[in-house]
Amino acid sequence: MAVGQFPFPAMNTVKGVRIGSACAGIKTAGREDLVVFEFIEGTRVAGVFTKNAFCAAPVTVCKNHLKQAEIRYLVANSGNANACTGAQGMDDSLTSCHQLARLGGVESNQVLPFSTGVIGVNLPMDKLTTALPEAFKALRDNGWASAAQGILTTDSRPKGASVQFMHEGETVTVTGVAKGSGMIRPDMATMLAYIATDAPVAKDVLQALLLEATNLSFNRITVDGDTSTNDSCILAATGQVSLSEITETSGEFYEKLRSAVIDVQIDLAKNIVSDGEGATKWVTIEVHGGSTEQESIKVGYAVAHSPLVKTALFASDPNWGRIVAAIGYADVEALDANKVKVWLGDVLIVENGGCASTYTEEAGQQVMNKEEILIRIDLNRGADKVVLWTTDLSYEYVKINAEYRS
Amino acid sequence: MAVGQFPFPAMNTVKGVRIGSACAGIKTAGREDLVVFEFIEGTRVAGVFTKNAFCAAPVTVCKNHLKQAEIRYLVANSGNANACTGAQGMDDSLTSCHQLARLGGVESNQVLPFSTGVIGVNLPMDKLTTALPEAFKALRDNGWASAAQGILTTDSRPKGASVQFMHEGETVTVTGVAKGSGMIRPDMATMLAYIATDAPVAKDVLQALLLEATNLSFNRITVDGDTSTNDSCILAATGQVSLSEITETSGEFYEKLRSAVIDVQIDLAKNIVSDGEGATKWVTIEVHGGSTEQESIKVGYAVAHSPLVKTALFASDPNWGRIVAAIGYADVEALDANKVKVWLGDVLIVENGGCASTYTEEAGQQVMNKEEILIRIDLNRGADKVVLWTTDLSYEYVKINAEYRS
Repeated sequence: MAVGQFPFPAMNTVKGVRIGSACAGIKTAGREDLVVFEFIEGTRVAGVFTKNAFCAAPVTVCKNHLKQAEIRYLVANSGNANACTGAQGMDDSLTSCHQLARLGGVESNQVLPFSTGVIGVNLPMDKLTTALPEAFKALRDNGWASAAQGILTTDSRPKGASVQFMHEGETVTVTGVAKGSGMIRPDMATMLAYIATDAPVAKDVLQALLLEATNLSFNRITVDGDTSTNDSCILAATGQVSLSEITETSGEFYEKLRSAVIDVQIDLAKNIVSDGEGATKWVTIEVHGGSTEQESIKVGYAVAHSPLVKTALFASDPNWGRIVAAIGYADVEALDANKVKVWLGDVLIVENGGCASTYTEEAGQQVMNKEEILIRIDLNRGADKVVLWTTDLSYEYVKINAEYRS
Repeated sequence: MAVGQFPFPAMNTVKGVRIGSACAGIKTAGREDLVVFEFIEGTRVAGVFTKNAFCAAPVTVCKNHLKQAEIRYLVANSGNANACTGAQGMDDSLTSCHQLARLGGVESNQVLPFSTGVIGVNLPMDKLTTALPEAFKALRDNGWASAAQGILTTDSRPKGASVQFMHEGETVTVTGVAKGSGMIRPDMATMLAYIATDAPVAKDVLQALLLEATNLSFNRITVDGDTSTNDSCILAATGQVSLSEITETSGEFYEKLRSAVIDVQIDLAKNIVSDGEGATKWVTIEVHGGSTEQESIKVGYAVAHSPLVKTALFASDPNWGRIVAAIGYADVEALDANKVKVWLGDVLIVENGGCASTYTEEAGQQVMNKEEILIRIDLNRGADKVVLWTTDLSYEYVKINAEYRS
């Protein structure tokens, strides 16, 4: 199930990026499940990864390779996460890098590997080895839509976003794809996301931009509160547009690029959450008036993760008591409940520690009947504001996750 | 739905405690929903309460009265939580104390009020006022079973526990009742629990004992991670057994009492969690080898709260990857995944960062098919051990909470 309108958009190609894919048979037979990205020489690559201590083998390899060399290739498979696979998992991940490096004529550590799917099962290396040359041969400029398909697992639809802006007469493109539907409470990045631009950007600036954009996008969504072992988000800048390199996190060019990258990442993040497993509602939670970002986030996630709030959303029940209970246990120091205000859409529901005198059940019900719902909270303690996105908790969520392996 | 075997036990009366109840019509008509406890003069009373910032009016009143006076009466209603009811809620709570105080010939601040049920609706004071004299008239020694019934809301069964021990030829009794089924992730105490002993205990010792026992019982269970606005746990010591007063948290008498109170509280806590909304599995999570209690608790609750782990439990699916993913995101600093071991029952499933070589899916399946499941985790970082209890996440949980008000 999915909510919200996210038609797959026209994907502008990014000069210097070629993408190929193939059916390795790791996922369902006949569905593309192996994707290769090729970046032109001189491309800068930044990455953010899951903080999960049981991070998958490919995440460990990615972190090492990013430190060691200039990245030229990515290889991603869906259907198997190569997570909790011990020493064999590391070997398999390195082998896939080695094989792609040989095809591309580069060093093994110039390749980043990614896997997503079932945890705890070894990668079927024979299948991967057979399909890799096929994906390599398929490398082409306009492969973004195939990439979006090839990385999916339980997702109901491919996810892409693409924006362009003008700078000094040149068109600059930012295009990205992502996947994710369950085990979504990214802590660094969603399960997998690949974004590229043809802007020329210094590596440290690119990494800083990726961190900022990720904090405003993939780190602000949650479906079920489960942080994956494989979350990875890559931002590549090929520098193929004839403009001088961005070397600082300031200036007109940087601000334009920053805005474009954030737009693409937020678009992908919202797309992921609205495709959340079993989602029937798509919920934006705004927390205003926090004294720090951290406490605003605590409050937002307490509401977003509360099974009681989520089931009330599923039932279209304006049971605001569950929202205030969640705010109350968010562990904000010395929170004065009497100062907190809560709105459902534009309807004020809570003030002075209780139900707003102007509130009517009918007004609350009208908001809850919608597919897209805004919960706005004002803590009245400071100037911080945080926005995050989540879904409801439905029968379907339980069904999908109870039956995932059976 | 409920799992586990918790027949309502024989409830030993506690000398110096009388209990009366009545049907006020706040809950479903014809079901007892108003309970009064009377403590003999000289009784010491200790209490622990929710840390929820939106704590209900009665919680605020309880805390104030406990500081001000010697408590002689408790009044508890079910069907309405008197939470998020602003200034009116405080007035109503104080009025109920005042009315009971007048009946009992004591001061208002010698009464503690408790409410549980729907949040955000004012207490129907007319109904409460009418029924209070009736409950008062019904005061009797053997009212524990009625009290257990009268405080229930969505619970499927009454919850009681009672133990006795001998000390210097005298029989000492500890008896308690509790309620709770949803919005269960107590942070101080469960929604409502009343425990009394006829042992003579100094007030500060009693409070220390209640805190310790609560940390090992009600603070170690979770159904849905939602901490209620009304959690309250009261421990009363009437001192009616002819023994000298316990004035220190040590000594033979104290140790016997401590053990009895902890037994009663753990019994009530397990009863609550096994009556968790929609529960079909009853799960014990043991975390061994933590370097601190805090990190062991983090790991335990990460596993206990993971919707992916809970739906796998519901499906009897030994999907251990979800357990290790939850351990991995529990935010334990510098956790070495390679040292972590995980067992399902007696079956070792994870070691060396991956699936144990001895593990078979059949062995895991056998454990998961049971109604009672033990998940044992060894972090191999230190000597701390924590035990907590939880349930699975079923269709029924979603149904109960989607339909609670409709």
